[in-house]
Amino acid sequence: MLIRLGYDIQFETPATTPMVALLHVHPSREPDLLEPDRLQVDPPIGATEYIDGFGNRCTRFVAQPGRIRLFNSTLIADSGLPDPINVYAREVPVGDVPDQYLCYLLNSRYCEVDRFSNIAYDLFGHVSPGWSKVHAICSWVNSKVQFSYPHARPTKSALDVYTERIGVCRDFQHLAITFCRAMNIPARYATGYLGDIGVPVNGPMDFSAWFEVYLEDRWWTFDARHNAPRIGRVLMAVGRDASDVAITTSFGQADLKHFSVVTDEVQAQSAEPIDSALSGRG
Amino acid sequence: MLIRLGYDIQFETPATTPMVALLHVHPSREPDLLEPDRLQVDPPIGATEYIDGFGNRCTRFVAQPGRIRLFNSTLIADSGLPDPINVYAREVPVGDVPDQYLCYLLNSRYCEVDRFSNIAYDLFGHVSPGWSKVHAICSWVNSKVQFSYPHARPTKSALDVYTERIGVCRDFQHLAITFCRAMNIPARYATGYLGDIGVPVNGPMDFSAWFEVYLEDRWWTFDARHNAPRIGRVLMAVGRDASDVAITTSFGQADLKHFSVVTDEVQAQSAEPIDSALSGRG
Amino acid sequence: MLIRLGYDIQFETPATTPMVALLHVHPSREPDLLEPDRLQVDPPIGATEYIDGFGNRCTRFVAQPGRIRLFNSTLIADSGLPDPINVYAREVPVGDVPDQYLCYLLNSRYCEVDRFSNIAYDLFGHVSPGWSKVHAICSWVNSKVQFSYPHARPTKSALDVYTERIGVCRDFQHLAITFCRAMNIPARYATGYLGDIGVPVNGPMDFSAWFEVYLEDRWWTFDARHNAPRIGRVLMAVGRDASDVAITTSFGQADLKHFSVVTDEVQAQSAEPIDSALSGRG
Amino acid sequence: MLIRLGYDIQFETPATTPMVALLHVHPSREPDLLEPDRLQVDPPIGATEYIDGFGNRCTRFVAQPGRIRLFNSTLIADSGLPDPINVYAREVPVGDVPDQYLCYLLNSRYCEVDRFSNIAYDLFGHVSPGWSKVHAICSWVNSKVQFSYPHARPTKSALDVYTERIGVCRDFQHLAITFCRAMNIPARYATGYLGDIGVPVNGPMDFSAWFEVYLEDRWWTFDARHNAPRIGRVLMAVGRDASDVAITTSFGQADLKHFSVVTDEVQAQSAEPIDSALSGRG
Repeated sequence: MLIRLGYDIQFETPATTPMVALLHVHPSREPDLLEPDRLQVDPPIGATEYIDGFGNRCTRFVAQPGRIRLFNSTLIADSGLPDPINVYAREVPVGDVPDQYLCYLLNSRYCEVDRFSNIAYDLFGHVSPGWSKVHAICSWVNSKVQFSYPHARPTKSALDVYTERIGVCRDFQHLAITFCRAMNIPARYATGYLGDIGVPVNGPMDFSAWFEVYLEDRWWTFDARHNAPRIGRVLMAVGRDASDVAITTSFGQADLKHFSVVTDEVQAQSAEPIDSALSGRG
Repeated sequence: MLIRLGYDIQFETPATTPMVALLHVHPSREPDLLEPDRLQVDPPIGATEYIDGFGNRCTRFVAQPGRIRLFNSTLIADSGLPDPINVYAREVPVGDVPDQYLCYLLNSRYCEVDRFSNIAYDLFGHVSPGWSKVHAICSWVNSKVQFSYPHARPTKSALDVYTERIGVCRDFQHLAITFCRAMNIPARYATGYLGDIGVPVNGPMDFSAWFEVYLEDRWWTFDARHNAPRIGRVLMAVGRDASDVAITTSFGQADLKHFSVVTDEVQAQSAEPIDSALSGRG
Repeated sequence: MLIRLGYDIQFETPATTPMVALLHVHPSREPDLLEPDRLQVDPPIGATEYIDGFGNRCTRFVAQPGRIRLFNSTLIADSGLPDPINVYAREVPVGDVPDQYLCYLLNSRYCEVDRFSNIAYDLFGHVSPGWSKVHAICSWVNSKVQFSYPHARPTKSALDVYTERIGVCRDFQHLAITFCRAMNIPARYATGYLGDIGVPVNGPMDFSAWFEVYLEDRWWTFDARHNAPRIGRVLMAVGRDASDVAITTSFGQADLKHFSVVTDEVQAQSAEPIDSALSGRG
Repeated sequence: MLIRLGYDIQFETPATTPMVALLHVHPSREPDLLEPDRLQVDPPIGATEYIDGFGNRCTRFVAQPGRIRLFNSTLIADSGLPDPINVYAREVPVGDVPDQYLCYLLNSRYCEVDRFSNIAYDLFGHVSPGWSKVHAICSWVNSKVQFSYPHARPTKSALDVYTERIGVCRDFQHLAITFCRAMNIPARYATGYLGDIGVPVNGPMDFSAWFEVYLEDRWWTFDARHNAPRIGRVLMAVGRDASDVAITTSFGQADLKHFSVVTDEVQAQSAEPIDSALSGRG
């Protein structure tokens, strides 16, 4: 399957504003790219790239006062298969979790593991370990939390989600991640493209959040928001929580003026860049 | 100056309990070691070492049910000079902060930068940038927060410290770090040995927390708890906040049964291991 | 001045739902009423009235499954004068505050006085006591907090307002009330009608929140949201905070389907009931 | 049964400090008093009494700089019977709760009912209503929360207790009260004397907190801390939560210097005042 990926994000910055963007396909998916994955900035400024401590490809630049546009269009090959399921995937005892993944058992800004140990144990202590437990966590979050765009807010933590039971995709994942860590299962936040492929179209496209859990010998994709395998996820970044992998982080005021994302399955012959289309819309 | 370093920490673990310890001298201080820095575990178990994502030397092991003792004694050479002061150290614009240090501008579990932007700006927005601003932050925290061991608690965040105005050294540093980050100054949590060298003896020895700030072209030591240059700090670990660099993290129940730390200036001739003394005390 | 007051509020309740409404003019304003102030309920059900512990006239009833409409129209005479100002009003030492008002110095759900003592003292400790201090508090809140309907949420407390600096009128008042109490000045939450009389029309009419402060020998009206004397406030209820004086409290699900409020200055000859107009709109 | 009641509480107040004390036996228990219940203050100052909005007998006074001692000794007749149990006590539909008790269904400072509706429903939604549900709530709190004096703090709310699972008697009751209110059962905080009568002596005497629930047609005593009927409770005050009925509330600094409480079963012939004994101890 071929997926056309792209975005057009525009900010107004009243002053010189340093920014970091996580708008590249994750290095693990680079082999699948059929076109360059190049973050374009208009007006052109000296953006540089680096790999952060979690292995994500980041771009940093300093926006000048005025309008700045970040856009891109690329094409990626995808297996077309839904998220893998392995109900036999075993829980890894903490003593055997690879060194570099131990950090995904700890507290982070939106995942107050220290405040959830008892809650998690009450809810999931009796569930068999491994895949079943993570699945139970996702199902619980999915059935208890209601999706609502207007109820998003930047300070919302897992504890807020647990008490308010309403929020957006990042909120679902933060709560599920926190439950996993509280049960000593490494869990990390993931962000990327997730088109409505194989499911009914559901409003304008946006980036999506899901999460990954380390079981058996690898990371597995889970999604407490949808709680069903999906086709066509394209990973952009992983981290402890949304603080680590914000699509854009601005150090100063940056007002969002335009935001559009493209994640479309395309046929081989029609896999043309979306850029022109997007500029037509601007 | 020579400093004898050591600790004797004992836990009772009712069940098999994976643990991570940050009980080594930080790699940056290894050249100063005059004796091996070897974490000893009794009963002996297969502990392994690794360097975490922040550059700290960590030890992990699985405690068996019963008593476990972590102890060590080593000797280090120290300049004997107080923490350096450079009132001319300039603030680094975010656009020029080295890539790998950008994470020290973000939110973390105990440093809710997102909730502090306005508070920090109100308090420190008018102070000249750079060293002066960090100094103003430390002085504010030092003068407003009261030290009290009984007021420590594992869930206490910078916002709690800001409202309660009482806590232990980690609480002072979390609040100061959060203020710095909210002012776009990279700040990280540091933990290590800090003996009462050159100051009146102040109760039984403990590990200490301070913080580091990136100014001009390097990290500088600040300490909102003491707010005065000190002699003889020996760094063990740095991270975003206390979550990253807990002295020991146990994944399961581990009851502290004994805790002693040694940080003594010694004369060259008498720099003998403290181990025997410690076992005498046990 | 004559003011036509009225409302039309409609809920859908899926099940039998007990409700309490604070939709009457406050007993202190009853002498000014020129028409009866009668909460009408459709379909008609057995509503009863009582005076709560704060002196407010409350109505309670049990909504049956389906649609319920609460409406009313009444006419009140008003001085037409702006909120009184008395810059000489002195602070009352706590020892002299009347017994029944001491409760307005304490904590309540949205006013965490215990977490604000130091913050309030830092900000307002130096301001001269009495009217000046309350005025300084209102000006601070008014200048630091931004008004935004989408940023309202039922769990938002004074501490949230203090950190987020955005919210609706109740949020402004909660923060100001908390500052006052933390400075030992009795302050209570007030809700009522506040039309755009003498000021530019500002969106659709709604009920409004303000607060009252006990100075010298009486309660005075303050409003951290507008921070300027206004004409035509008609008090409905006072309490510790919005928990005590919610316009409607439903014990069960009640979905708001229609909400309109009327607060119009009318000429003596045209002071006809608004009811017909409203039913035309339904 | 006769119970000797008394206390000796001493504060050091650096400045003139208004205080309110709830140190009388509750008016509902006055008929049982065999000796006057007279709060004595030394040095003698002009203390006055009033009944607050919850029906409690309060004393207010202004402490002068220096030491102030509040003490008392009285004798009360008690049924000697344990807290009554009525497993058939039915839940009162909110629509039938007496007007003046509706406030015990709402939010208060330490009981964030708005944040607990879903949690309470998840835990207790399936339990049969009335006595069984309250009993289930008490048992849950009693089995999940650990008692620990050092873990008390003035800002600790029901949500903190729910996440931390440790605290003192007021914390147990706050959590249970919040669960009850979230299930639409009126619940109020109670404070008073509770001696170790009929149970093993458990440390030095202190005042105690419990709570009351409105079922069937009256208030019933519940105690999530002990979760077993006790003999010899003597009620002092009721309110929404500990904010309303603090033993003493000081508006300014007041450092506790001495605190002792007496609650002893005495034989008729030896029911002499304890005052002399207490002054011997001072």
